[in-house]
Amino acid sequence: MVDTQKLIITAAVTGAEVTKKQQPNLPITPDEIAEEAYRCYLSGASIVHVHARDPEGKPTQSLEIYREIKEKIEAKCNIIVQPSTGGAVWHTVEERIQPLYLNPEMATLSTGTCNFGKDIFANPEEYIERFALEMKKRGIKPEIEVFERGMIENALRLVKKGILEPPLHFDFVMGVPGAIPGNIQDLVYLVNCIPPGSTWSVAGIGRYELPLAVHAIAMGGHVRVGFEDNIYYRKGELAKSNAQLVERIVRIAKELGREIATPDEAREILGIRR
Amino acid sequence: MVDTQKLIITAAVTGAEVTKKQQPNLPITPDEIAEEAYRCYLSGASIVHVHARDPEGKPTQSLEIYREIKEKIEAKCNIIVQPSTGGAVWHTVEERIQPLYLNPEMATLSTGTCNFGKDIFANPEEYIERFALEMKKRGIKPEIEVFERGMIENALRLVKKGILEPPLHFDFVMGVPGAIPGNIQDLVYLVNCIPPGSTWSVAGIGRYELPLAVHAIAMGGHVRVGFEDNIYYRKGELAKSNAQLVERIVRIAKELGREIATPDEAREILGIRR
Amino acid sequence: MVDTQKLIITAAVTGAEVTKKQQPNLPITPDEIAEEAYRCYLSGASIVHVHARDPEGKPTQSLEIYREIKEKIEAKCNIIVQPSTGGAVWHTVEERIQPLYLNPEMATLSTGTCNFGKDIFANPEEYIERFALEMKKRGIKPEIEVFERGMIENALRLVKKGILEPPLHFDFVMGVPGAIPGNIQDLVYLVNCIPPGSTWSVAGIGRYELPLAVHAIAMGGHVRVGFEDNIYYRKGELAKSNAQLVERIVRIAKELGREIATPDEAREILGIRR
Amino acid sequence: MVDTQKLIITAAVTGAEVTKKQQPNLPITPDEIAEEAYRCYLSGASIVHVHARDPEGKPTQSLEIYREIKEKIEAKCNIIVQPSTGGAVWHTVEERIQPLYLNPEMATLSTGTCNFGKDIFANPEEYIERFALEMKKRGIKPEIEVFERGMIENALRLVKKGILEPPLHFDFVMGVPGAIPGNIQDLVYLVNCIPPGSTWSVAGIGRYELPLAVHAIAMGGHVRVGFEDNIYYRKGELAKSNAQLVERIVRIAKELGREIATPDEAREILGIRR
Ligand SMILES: [Zn+2]
Ligand SMILES: [Zn+2]
Ligand SMILES: [Zn+2]
Ligand SMILES: [Zn+2]
Repeated sequence: MVDTQKLIITAAVTGAEVTKKQQPNLPITPDEIAEEAYRCYLSGASIVHVHARDPEGKPTQSLEIYREIKEKIEAKCNIIVQPSTGGAVWHTVEERIQPLYLNPEMATLSTGTCNFGKDIFANPEEYIERFALEMKKRGIKPEIEVFERGMIENALRLVKKGILEPPLHFDFVMGVPGAIPGNIQDLVYLVNCIPPGSTWSVAGIGRYELPLAVHAIAMGGHVRVGFEDNIYYRKGELAKSNAQLVERIVRIAKELGREIATPDEAREILGIRR
Repeated sequence: MVDTQKLIITAAVTGAEVTKKQQPNLPITPDEIAEEAYRCYLSGASIVHVHARDPEGKPTQSLEIYREIKEKIEAKCNIIVQPSTGGAVWHTVEERIQPLYLNPEMATLSTGTCNFGKDIFANPEEYIERFALEMKKRGIKPEIEVFERGMIENALRLVKKGILEPPLHFDFVMGVPGAIPGNIQDLVYLVNCIPPGSTWSVAGIGRYELPLAVHAIAMGGHVRVGFEDNIYYRKGELAKSNAQLVERIVRIAKELGREIATPDEAREILGIRR
Repeated sequence: MVDTQKLIITAAVTGAEVTKKQQPNLPITPDEIAEEAYRCYLSGASIVHVHARDPEGKPTQSLEIYREIKEKIEAKCNIIVQPSTGGAVWHTVEERIQPLYLNPEMATLSTGTCNFGKDIFANPEEYIERFALEMKKRGIKPEIEVFERGMIENALRLVKKGILEPPLHFDFVMGVPGAIPGNIQDLVYLVNCIPPGSTWSVAGIGRYELPLAVHAIAMGGHVRVGFEDNIYYRKGELAKSNAQLVERIVRIAKELGREIATPDEAREILGIRR
Repeated sequence: MVDTQKLIITAAVTGAEVTKKQQPNLPITPDEIAEEAYRCYLSGASIVHVHARDPEGKPTQSLEIYREIKEKIEAKCNIIVQPSTGGAVWHTVEERIQPLYLNPEMATLSTGTCNFGKDIFANPEEYIERFALEMKKRGIKPEIEVFERGMIENALRLVKKGILEPPLHFDFVMGVPGAIPGNIQDLVYLVNCIPPGSTWSVAGIGRYELPLAVHAIAMGGHVRVGFEDNIYYRKGELAKSNAQLVERIVRIAKELGREIATPDEAREILGIRR
């Protein structure tokens, strides 16, 4: 009975932090990632958020590896491929920008800086503007990654400068140690701060993933799940696959009467012209 | 992965407003109500909120009919029977107080006045105090029905006067035309206003029932569903029974990893000594 | 440095509850009310909210007394005269509507029901619509009196029915025992619930008057003060006059760099065509 | 009529960013800073937040200059001297920690990282813990500087680790370009997130200084003003001195009936044993 847009589910299948040791089912190679993206697509995901790894499993922003991932996924299905411009916390701005050169339909754009565990996830104004301008030039739809309240303001400042164009699409990444936590108060607060006409999804980290996803379904927002954010199916039980996490979201959405967007429906909701 | 109290589900099976014409499966007679309460119990409800009807189906606060309902339910299962002191909007205070004379384990206590569709649901201070004192005298656990923000304040005023004893249990009735609507902002606001150590549930009216229930599950609150609040299973499709609405809540709670309270577990959570 | 509309100050000089015994400087007769309105005007008020009293000081909704008040005020200055359609809690709807027949520029419109101390302030849908239609017919600007969240919803329902026309002007009456309290959280919540383009003021009751007024000044809202809401200048010290309360608001507004609206500027802000 | 603690006013007289060119009355030398601190003390400030500058006016974390400032202030009055461990955005952790070696009564502790205009104000976990441990060892009361929501969480994490001891004192720095803005919603949100028993003040940047200060006075919080945060008295008009900004706060507080804390009263409120 939730009367809203169809639900866009993003699968964040790999990330930059998780290891095979922590989560044996983590997809690492382009083939594994493409296979996992395809399974998530079959389960109901319309976007796959990807990070590349080198053959040893270390995070890389290599254009070639991103290209291989993108091509392999696109050979299997029409899911939207959304590479990361965040990379790992130690990547340079030059490395981080690489996947934009593949002209993906979407890419992430983190609009501020915060602590990220023991590290700093650094996004000074200069980086943000460089990524955003490159996306604008190439017609890539930015997913604005918001880890704190001020990052919304930073995005709106880019709108005023003409670097970002509304309607904006936000992803609230909540529960990273060092940044905004993932309580419902925090989500309601962030949602209240974005301009009317925006779309938004939520990526809850760890134990926040599931409750925030459920709130978002009921609020008319969209949802990101996957091993980048959370490796467990339930407390103490590792998930079998990213697809397993997607499937649960699909089941809950159906209980709520919210339909699942196909990739093409997601493109329409987000204003992506293919 | 929601790490909280077990979930108390209340089934509000009849109410004072709905008719058999609107919802053919509405339980009206003591036998029907007892049968429905039992089905809800089997499905996972630990409290049944009851309103009596006369043989023509008209709302009544008759002590005898409430007695019959209570006895018939208790003959079938140990679900907590929670009669209404709200009755219908046109009942007198004398009529409304009747079910308290049965010494039920719980009863509702509306702590303020608001519009209720075209009518007024009148609960002046004098009524509230009379009901509350009677409950206190008889050891009946009040479920404080909150239709607006100020009703929380009114309850806290009774605590100061020694008429109500913490920890309090609130039920937020949201979406009644004339009172607070049922958006997540409204729920978060109300939850922020109750004292630490309180328990709460939410009863969303009509289309608000399901999304508010889901928010409550994820927030660690409790849930009320049933024909008193909502007669549909989904848009345009009448529910087959109150139990069908309970079952969906149970399925969603399980997806979220939240366990369901038995009646005895609900008694423990609410501090009811039988 | 508050960069907003000029500040509209409403003086609620008499009300229906306060007595000369409680506040010896309370204006009661038409002459006293007109004199007090004039003093408030000189101090910076651009609206005077009036309740009539009979010669014994009892609240009355007499058309003739309202007429006398209105004429005497208008003979002195061009302050906006805003009579009450709330009257006292025991006035009938026929009595309450009387002052509208004088075609004042503004009048109050309470859009819901709540407890009011030991009484009920009753505004069922039928009353609200009758008052609103009469105001619409006569071109009277309604000040929507909001004592609880749901009353905003009720007003918006009238907009949908074509009975109220945006932009709406709200007055949040906060701190009445029985209705919404007057904390800053409550004010922010209410302000977040009104449609963009609305104007609003706040009338804090008793000890809430001053802090809420100050918040409103800083937030770009407008302010109501006066003996109807609060009879003290500070704790334990009765105010000398309504004007004394207005003067303090003016001084604080000046400290904040917020200019004071004249009656004609208030008319322009509120869209009142004289 | 605000019924709360006496108001602690902090004067942030110099900061690390402002230049004499922007604000000719900026105190730079130890003598100037001490003189300004004394003027602020006479005006009603009970804490002076200080940043050192070298003879050319460039920010420095020199122990010797901080010592000179501290001694010169303490020779004049008993205002609490609160040096910065933030320094300027380009200072190293070694430089930033220097003033703690003077055993001041208080010092600032920024508990997270955010953009700061074009720069990053970097406070990784390691820095925060190092500063906090040094303060704990020396009995220095930390003023926890919060530029974003997550920084409250970071502080609470230090409480769990035993590095910070409640009751905590927070300063919400709001309106820095790159971090949380300074709307009343943002302030209410932050205040709702700190543990009961905490104290808090607000430092609004630029045009946010005055309205946030006024909200804090009315809410029972405390206030920071001064050239570090804002150099104007009103739009387009530079302030004559930090003391002029303090005096306005004192006048507004008096209008609100809130008394001003002396330094010793501030010590008592904050739990500082001299
Ligand atoms: Zn990522
Ligand atoms: Zn009921
Ligand atoms: Zn009135
Ligand atoms: Zn500083």
